[in-house]
Amino acid sequence: MVVGLGTGSTAKHAVDRIAELLRQGKLKDIVGVPTSTKTYDQARSLGIPLSDLDSHPVVDLAIDGADEVDAALNLVKGRGGSLLREKMVESVSKKFIVIVDESKLVKHVGGSGLAMPVEVIPFCWNHSLKRLVNLFAYAGCVGELRKCAENGKPSVTDNGNYVIDLYFERDIGDLDEASDAILRLPGIVEHGMFIGLASSVIVASVSGITIKTKVGNEVQAESFCYSELRNGF
Amino acid sequence: MVVGLGTGSTAKHAVDRIAELLRQGKLKDIVGVPTSTKTYDQARSLGIPLSDLDSHPVVDLAIDGADEVDAALNLVKGRGGSLLREKMVESVSKKFIVIVDESKLVKHVGGSGLAMPVEVIPFCWNHSLKRLVNLFAYAGCVGELRKCAENGKPSVTDNGNYVIDLYFERDIGDLDEASDAILRLPGIVEHGMFIGLASSVIVASVSGITIKTKVGNEVQAESFCYSELRNGF
Repeated sequence: MVVGLGTGSTAKHAVDRIAELLRQGKLKDIVGVPTSTKTYDQARSLGIPLSDLDSHPVVDLAIDGADEVDAALNLVKGRGGSLLREKMVESVSKKFIVIVDESKLVKHVGGSGLAMPVEVIPFCWNHSLKRLVNLFAYAGCVGELRKCAENGKPSVTDNGNYVIDLYFERDIGDLDEASDAILRLPGIVEHGMFIGLASSVIVASVSGITIKTKVGNEVQAESFCYSELRNGF
Repeated sequence: MVVGLGTGSTAKHAVDRIAELLRQGKLKDIVGVPTSTKTYDQARSLGIPLSDLDSHPVVDLAIDGADEVDAALNLVKGRGGSLLREKMVESVSKKFIVIVDESKLVKHVGGSGLAMPVEVIPFCWNHSLKRLVNLFAYAGCVGELRKCAENGKPSVTDNGNYVIDLYFERDIGDLDEASDAILRLPGIVEHGMFIGLASSVIVASVSGITIKTKVGNEVQAESFCYSELRNGF
């Protein structure tokens, strides 16, 4: 089985657990496709057999976290800076399972007040920032270049690009239209909206978990309290 | 006046000529925005005052060559490897004038049998190549990674990316749709189709020049033989 290995604090736990189950012999014949150099390093150090999309262009299952999840299971990802490789892997996954806590559920993209990241080429990034902000002026958009906390220099992605963080005051409306408008700007590499990619989202809360699953155009939800889970879910 | 300076053998002549007219005092108050490091170096060595899109986000006039021009003045550009910066500059130019010889006129994109280049991130480029070729399977598409003639290594753009050259046996149909389909693939940075960007195309042939100009959705053409031009065009 080819497994896409996500990036970030949640995905890190999943990668640890996969390695543990492999060591115990409970999982076998797993090939991991990491979505960042960070996850590659982690998975390699844990002894998970690794490959990439050139050798394994179809991924059976991807597991990752998300920064936001809307009611239709559209996601915002990339606050951790790995949105492009995540999207490359997760867009060719037969199943893509997302794990979040309930604080990540939003009414609309940007609804958490946190950033929707856009990866841009460094050349004239300020020009790209202005064009992005203009695109979403109707939603009260502001944008800023992501910088490293340590030295104030622009944060650089695994692909050598910069990240513009966009903040929306209001709903940006149709996400497919917004996506195309962003991608049509020359200088933009990719954005952090993962539209229609997640098959299931597992939402953890204080009382239990809810599993939201796409069935056609509908989202079906099933909830379990932790005592049920302990009794052999 | 802010002038976008193109890249390639034709644009090189235009940059030389602008520098000459500046030296002679026939042109004044020109700021050039180069579309590649190559053009930057050329223009700088000729003493043309230079800027970029961060300082000059609106360009009054851009001048460049093209690899193909179709009947609606859509272009293919980027065989010289600078399509992204060219598109960034030329997409914000009030006027964009293209200079070609008549061998560049085609019935449809790819009609010359030469490449339509796509700039991709190096990560899993082979996977991106396969996804691009699949997208245009209906047009008999083949693709190959562009390599340096000298050493056979992948050719690297000014932005640190690779180039996939796509060849089409047949017309790919609606260009806006084709453009969106390409840009939606994660890992693709930009493509070489310049759709609806050129305001005028100057076509040189053995007998004279034809100036094709966009007027609304129409293209109007006016031809001049060289003797007319010598008599004070």
